[in-house]
Amino acid sequence: MKIQGHPWRTVWLNADAQVEVIDQRFLPHELITAVLPDVASFERAIREMWIRGAPLIGVVAAYGLAVAMRHDSSDTSLLAAQRTLLATRPTAVNLQWGLARMVADLLPRPPQDRVQAAFALAAHMADEDVSMNHQLGLHGLALIREVARRKPGQRIHILTHCNAGWLATVDWGTATSAIYQAYNEGIGVHVWVDETRPRNQGASLTAWELGQHGVPHTLIVDNAGGHLMQHGQVDMCIVGTDRVTARGDVCNKIGTYLKALAAHDNNVPFYVAMPSPTLDLSVHDGVREIPIEDRAGEEISHMTGLDAHGYLSTVQISPTGTPTNTNPGFDVTPARLVTALITDRGLCAATPAAIAALFGPQPQPHFASAD
Amino acid sequence: MKIQGHPWRTVWLNADAQVEVIDQRFLPHELITAVLPDVASFERAIREMWIRGAPLIGVVAAYGLAVAMRHDSSDTSLLAAQRTLLATRPTAVNLQWGLARMVADLLPRPPQDRVQAAFALAAHMADEDVSMNHQLGLHGLALIREVARRKPGQRIHILTHCNAGWLATVDWGTATSAIYQAYNEGIGVHVWVDETRPRNQGASLTAWELGQHGVPHTLIVDNAGGHLMQHGQVDMCIVGTDRVTARGDVCNKIGTYLKALAAHDNNVPFYVAMPSPTLDLSVHDGVREIPIEDRAGEEISHMTGLDAHGYLSTVQISPTGTPTNTNPGFDVTPARLVTALITDRGLCAATPAAIAALFGPQPQPHFASAD
Repeated sequence: MKIQGHPWRTVWLNADAQVEVIDQRFLPHELITAVLPDVASFERAIREMWIRGAPLIGVVAAYGLAVAMRHDSSDTSLLAAQRTLLATRPTAVNLQWGLARMVADLLPRPPQDRVQAAFALAAHMADEDVSMNHQLGLHGLALIREVARRKPGQRIHILTHCNAGWLATVDWGTATSAIYQAYNEGIGVHVWVDETRPRNQGASLTAWELGQHGVPHTLIVDNAGGHLMQHGQVDMCIVGTDRVTARGDVCNKIGTYLKALAAHDNNVPFYVAMPSPTLDLSVHDGVREIPIEDRAGEEISHMTGLDAHGYLSTVQISPTGTPTNTNPGFDVTPARLVTALITDRGLCAATPAAIAALFGPQPQPHFASAD
Repeated sequence: MKIQGHPWRTVWLNADAQVEVIDQRFLPHELITAVLPDVASFERAIREMWIRGAPLIGVVAAYGLAVAMRHDSSDTSLLAAQRTLLATRPTAVNLQWGLARMVADLLPRPPQDRVQAAFALAAHMADEDVSMNHQLGLHGLALIREVARRKPGQRIHILTHCNAGWLATVDWGTATSAIYQAYNEGIGVHVWVDETRPRNQGASLTAWELGQHGVPHTLIVDNAGGHLMQHGQVDMCIVGTDRVTARGDVCNKIGTYLKALAAHDNNVPFYVAMPSPTLDLSVHDGVREIPIEDRAGEEISHMTGLDAHGYLSTVQISPTGTPTNTNPGFDVTPARLVTALITDRGLCAATPAAIAALFGPQPQPHFASAD
């Protein structure tokens, strides 16, 4: 997507053939890129969330192995780099998947062939992510076009939660892919962007990337969506997901469930953008079976932004000593609240039968929470 | 309630017979009180939210008229002070009600009797608020005791939203009254405190006042409550309200509706603490009829807290230029999602019949949004 009129991806090989990424820690206030010259820098970039988002983590980790091969293409080096990168975000199954795919391809090759093969496969995985998200977006675009036909000349209001945007992927995003494609073809979309406490990815990432590309949007607090739906201000919700179960339960950023309840209560369609690797057929009851990462309380008690002098500053917003030790990063929206899954293979009802019909009985590689 | 072991109210006459209030703007980081020596200072204190909360605003405005009488007890002075204070928070109907009650009492009296009468009535209104909240809390306490009987020796988890605590009233609070009374008699309550974006009254006021009194609590983001209810971590919700309609629809701080939906979806009782003046029998369909205050976008884009040096600092948390011009302060929870109203007259089903039976056919004075 575009930043100030120029097309960008979140990860690329620069003119010196070095891997470079957008360092998302400083968004929305500063656009900073970082070169990742060695495994240690990839480790830091994933662990400290310079980059985040399930699909992006998988691709960046793949590039991490390629860079490791450039330094030392031995088996020992390959497996050590895999171990190091695997430990950066222990719950991110997509990280395991991206690394395992690389190792399975590289290990059988003679060491002298590995550097080229590794960069080729990492680049392929990046392109595959872009293409899958684009394809998924086309199916979502059909839904938006349908709303546009029903209310010609009027704005189409789409609510999203967290950042399932291009910053969480290599490009296009998942939930945002249909939105960017609708905007690009001139449909009058307007996005309600949930702030998404506690890490504010809606405010700092989604609002920023939509703004940079030019898509009309309004940042709202997480509390406001229900009220807007009650008053006919939301035509559809589209969110991303970190994992979808065999019966269609959707794990996504904390607070998604509340919006799904409000959508259901107000007959607003609630769509989930799901690239096929995010389906986990080994899990059924999402509420009972998916482990939910409990994150640091400082995400609740502190907030970072620009101070009056334009410097990044962190302030403590809760009383000193107030317990903030319950900070679930994700929740699960039961399948009954999901209108449909928007996948790269087409729309899919959030039911065991529809999912089995579209995605077959074979287990899929799966991604877990990585944001 | 207590601050560091000492009992406080939010407004009182000090040793110099001056009206003094807790200036809530600096909470939770600093406990500052302010003397209000003249009508101009009352005007500023209400307009700039040194004090807030529907019941408290009514009482403080009453004291404002008393102070006006002390300076000049003429009809002109009385009516001018009424006009000035009325304009501070135009949507706060309780402000109108408190002022009208004072003027109705004072205007028939000879000017020389007005100072004493005004301070007496304001003190009476303050005590009346305390006693009503205490009474309401006794009915809520019975509900908590019932849960305590069902799970002996276990913590009772109560979720609340925004600040319907003693800081929003003269003392006890509305939603918190039952909680304080349960705590005071040794019941093992634990409160999930919703942060309550965008103004963070949950974090800055409710967490603070519960902590000062010693009530166990955990501050959570507004997104987390649904997940906690799905996992059996919430025994009941108790929230306050700014207005309840004749059929039981509940207007309260934005985001309340989302929690009510989650409570309903998980069979968690959802109670609304309603002092009888908050009932507005002139309104039926809360979603359609109650006007919702749209507040400044800076509440979304900026956040205030303590910086690394311990100074209050405001930071911009959203991208520069991101639209934040949709900031509804309140939402309406349909009566069907409300388990019961906890009122000073007893528990009341959120139905037209039950409300009419308990509160009679006569119109009630009503309060509107004032937080």
